[in-house]
Amino acid sequence: MSQTAVPDAVRQAVEGIAMRARSAGRELAQWGTDVKDAALHAMATALVEAGDGIVGENRADLADGERDGLSAGLLDRLRLDSGRIAQIADALREVAGLPDPVGEVLCGRTLPNGLRLRQIRVPMGVVGMIYEARPGVTVDAAGLAVKSGNAVILRGGSAARRTNGAIVAVLGEALEREGLPRDAVQTVDDYGRDGARALMTARGMVDLLIPRGGAGLIQTVVREATVPCIETGVGNCHVYVDSAANLDEALRVVVNSKAQRPSVCNAAETLLVNQQVAQAFLPVAARALAAEGVKLHADPRALALIPGDVDVVPATEADWSTEYLSLDLAVGVVEDVEDAIEHIQTYSSGHTEAICTRDLATATRFVEAMDSAAVIVNASTRFTDGGQFGLGAEIGISTQKLHARGPMGLTELTTTKWVVWGDGQIRT
Amino acid sequence: MSQTAVPDAVRQAVEGIAMRARSAGRELAQWGTDVKDAALHAMATALVEAGDGIVGENRADLADGERDGLSAGLLDRLRLDSGRIAQIADALREVAGLPDPVGEVLCGRTLPNGLRLRQIRVPMGVVGMIYEARPGVTVDAAGLAVKSGNAVILRGGSAARRTNGAIVAVLGEALEREGLPRDAVQTVDDYGRDGARALMTARGMVDLLIPRGGAGLIQTVVREATVPCIETGVGNCHVYVDSAANLDEALRVVVNSKAQRPSVCNAAETLLVNQQVAQAFLPVAARALAAEGVKLHADPRALALIPGDVDVVPATEADWSTEYLSLDLAVGVVEDVEDAIEHIQTYSSGHTEAICTRDLATATRFVEAMDSAAVIVNASTRFTDGGQFGLGAEIGISTQKLHARGPMGLTELTTTKWVVWGDGQIRT
Repeated sequence: MSQTAVPDAVRQAVEGIAMRARSAGRELAQWGTDVKDAALHAMATALVEAGDGIVGENRADLADGERDGLSAGLLDRLRLDSGRIAQIADALREVAGLPDPVGEVLCGRTLPNGLRLRQIRVPMGVVGMIYEARPGVTVDAAGLAVKSGNAVILRGGSAARRTNGAIVAVLGEALEREGLPRDAVQTVDDYGRDGARALMTARGMVDLLIPRGGAGLIQTVVREATVPCIETGVGNCHVYVDSAANLDEALRVVVNSKAQRPSVCNAAETLLVNQQVAQAFLPVAARALAAEGVKLHADPRALALIPGDVDVVPATEADWSTEYLSLDLAVGVVEDVEDAIEHIQTYSSGHTEAICTRDLATATRFVEAMDSAAVIVNASTRFTDGGQFGLGAEIGISTQKLHARGPMGLTELTTTKWVVWGDGQIRT
Repeated sequence: MSQTAVPDAVRQAVEGIAMRARSAGRELAQWGTDVKDAALHAMATALVEAGDGIVGENRADLADGERDGLSAGLLDRLRLDSGRIAQIADALREVAGLPDPVGEVLCGRTLPNGLRLRQIRVPMGVVGMIYEARPGVTVDAAGLAVKSGNAVILRGGSAARRTNGAIVAVLGEALEREGLPRDAVQTVDDYGRDGARALMTARGMVDLLIPRGGAGLIQTVVREATVPCIETGVGNCHVYVDSAANLDEALRVVVNSKAQRPSVCNAAETLLVNQQVAQAFLPVAARALAAEGVKLHADPRALALIPGDVDVVPATEADWSTEYLSLDLAVGVVEDVEDAIEHIQTYSSGHTEAICTRDLATATRFVEAMDSAAVIVNASTRFTDGGQFGLGAEIGISTQKLHARGPMGLTELTTTKWVVWGDGQIRT
């Protein structure tokens, strides 16, 4: 996105949307869990009922996308059909079943002067989401926002503009029928990239901005946003196979971490193998990975141990920091756990790192040294996920340290408020 | 600060400081509470022992400040003597006595597949502080950082450069004598404003940046920072006196909120009075405030009720959003609690709002409607303070909603990490 100024008309329009969102959020914050849950069920029903219309708009987006030469992967993520809409609607019903974080008392005490102090969980207010052309995210974000008492302002990919417009209209009407403010779910998609930039810089009007998508999108938003923003999702995840690993178990963990779903942020991108077990492990692992279609990018020591019939190229410096999101894996041989730690500290994006070892001291050292959202001992990196962790639906995975780290669910869409009840106390 | 590029030499120097801080933070994170507390006591002792030298550097800063025409208030905040140094050292010892947040297990469970999941509190890593010429903040920030296992990079006001340099040298030597990394406490003061700007934009090297000072400083940092940043401290705090208030109690609360210490962020800046009690309350309150030297800025309805011998001027639109930090108070008459809520929602900076009322429904409505860090019923706004809340020392008061809201202590200088222990689990 360019650094030229946002046109005044766009800024005013987006600020108008944000002010209506603020007002809707204030109203939503006052409704109880039962009202919000009823609205989520109504939103789900309305989506299914409006399915044909939404699919029609989606077909138009897909036709434009094909004309504009979108990749098959992007078109696939954009595509909706009645089965997919039913899944998306079910996800809303699941959010309705989650506990409501709003109103939770986090701590409290009566102070020596008699003041009664409480720290209470409250909605953020206005949440912004900037994401790519995945219509399911539109619904997920709206559902999580409503449940947590927030208004949401959406900016989906331009390739999904008509689909998202249809979805937001349906959700808004459902909210209105349930007596909730329609402006709780709005989009700035009509204003293109300028709209996104106005949203990123609407200081005082947006309480939390979450970018979700590829590394380019996230870096742009984090760099340009002047509203509070959370960095999500870039996952350059590592698996380290220690000298004390159970190699059969390590093989399953490595293959699963890389190949079970390579396109997502918790898939492994680099395998580090302790030199003591490299000769025993690497040839077997290379063949098993090759059987899954994985292409290896190997350092010289690993390269020497990989069988000639395996698809492998020499690793470049760039490979160590690349989030492939594909069936590619960087492979290196390290001296020991300290060497592995140093490598990971140098190249990691702070998402998930795993170690395979049966040695307790080594596992503990690795867990303490890793500065990532999740550290996993003897299991697949693929477990870093709100659903897998038992946290319910997630709106993204934070790779920063402020406010939220790791899978972000309903709780991460709230803030707190100190409430103090007194009877005339003053400071002396 | 201008938007011109930071000179390469300054950026490289500051990034070098940040990398050394990262390394020091990693080392500090591994030390237990006993070692960190011993270091805090050593830092306190070293400060007192080096008192004469620090006071000498402080005199030089003061002389420069006088020559440069610094205000009496700024010179006062900059000034150190042996008594003040003893107080600052005692504050370090108090931090040593606080509970260590690091290592706390926030939640945990065993998942159905046998994975043992824990969410553990860990240090942030590298914390940046940008503040004005108050040498006490240098020591407070260093102490809170060490206790919470973080390295800190300080940027104090240029007027305190020599004082801060002497303090940081003393603290670093004390850390080193205790076997802790000297680079855990560093300053970029040698690089002036360019150094501050390099610190604000050292992405990936600074985990949390806290500006502390006047509104101008804070807004500049929040606007220009590309590292995660917390907005602190601007307090346009309100007191609303309801029709159901106990007026004697309300008088004490209003006078205390405004006049007990007008230069701090939790002092009241606007008084709103319900029209039903304005005639009974305002003349008395105006006289009581005038007796404390408070100058009133009144709206037309308030103006009509304020006795002629009281120092009062008509309020302008700007008065409603001004954080005076002085013996000035904006005064308005409102129709009812809803009118008061609307006024506060329009002008508040989100710090602290108080209501005086004996009516439960009115108090509850006010508490729920206010979107501020603290809402206080029948007590002074001056209670919003880490020490008063019983949270221990504070590094600032957050007025944003992300990560921390209200007084920030040791806990707010930490993040969390998910740790997962398995025995070969993979996703299917």
